[in-house]
Amino acid sequence: MKPTHIEHIGIAVKKLDDAIPYYEKVLGLECYAVEEVKDQKVKTAFFKVGETKIELLESTDPEGPIGKFIEKKGEGIHHIAFAVPEVEKALKDAENNGVRLIDKEGRKGAEGLNIGFLHPKSTFGVLTELCSE
Amino acid sequence: MKPTHIEHIGIAVKKLDDAIPYYEKVLGLECYAVEEVKDQKVKTAFFKVGETKIELLESTDPEGPIGKFIEKKGEGIHHIAFAVPEVEKALKDAENNGVRLIDKEGRKGAEGLNIGFLHPKSTFGVLTELCSE
Repeated sequence: MKPTHIEHIGIAVKKLDDAIPYYEKVLGLECYAVEEVKDQKVKTAFFKVGETKIELLESTDPEGPIGKFIEKKGEGIHHIAFAVPEVEKALKDAENNGVRLIDKEGRKGAEGLNIGFLHPKSTFGVLTELCSE
Repeated sequence: MKPTHIEHIGIAVKKLDDAIPYYEKVLGLECYAVEEVKDQKVKTAFFKVGETKIELLESTDPEGPIGKFIEKKGEGIHHIAFAVPEVEKALKDAENNGVRLIDKEGRKGAEGLNIGFLHPKSTFGVLTELCSE
């Protein structure tokens, strides 16, 4: 595996409508898209900073992954996504190195990317996403 | 404030010696420096991925900020650092926008950068560092 850059940083927030003005006014970033990802039970807002995106995640369901995360840990950084040339191969590489996978195969994520998650138990506590176009 | 890119992502780990091989072997990144930052009571290991660094942080003192973080939350993502043209001005801008600061003025951080932290109470749970050269 050879990631080319940090594709995005996922940040769990209670309300996009509260957090977006902070990212825009204080940090000076521009929200260029809001998208709902139904199977993840989230609404996302995207900002670009250099080659990386900030992806704010608001839960649309208390039983969804972000709803549970916020209930347990509060708002904050949820995951890091590395851009890799090919998700399927990268997931296989990780598994061959003894890493526990959340996704055995790539699936569709926000912005039409092909994505897969590594389990934080295998990654020193960092929920790690791999993604490719 | 107008950040140019994500300068680094700080990740708290119990032992650099355990985590470095994961970042090198599994993720395919290269550890190019290990540095002790005495006033932060940490030993850091740096990796580069695109224009962003991964900064692993091992506490050298259970009473230091990373020691306490790990005791409370376990290993995981600790902070995000945005590269800005000028830290002093960016801190002032943030304060003028009602953001609570951890550092009222810039100070020296790892790799000789000028840095300052915003308080997570004002940033929707994200410990946020600003840094400039």
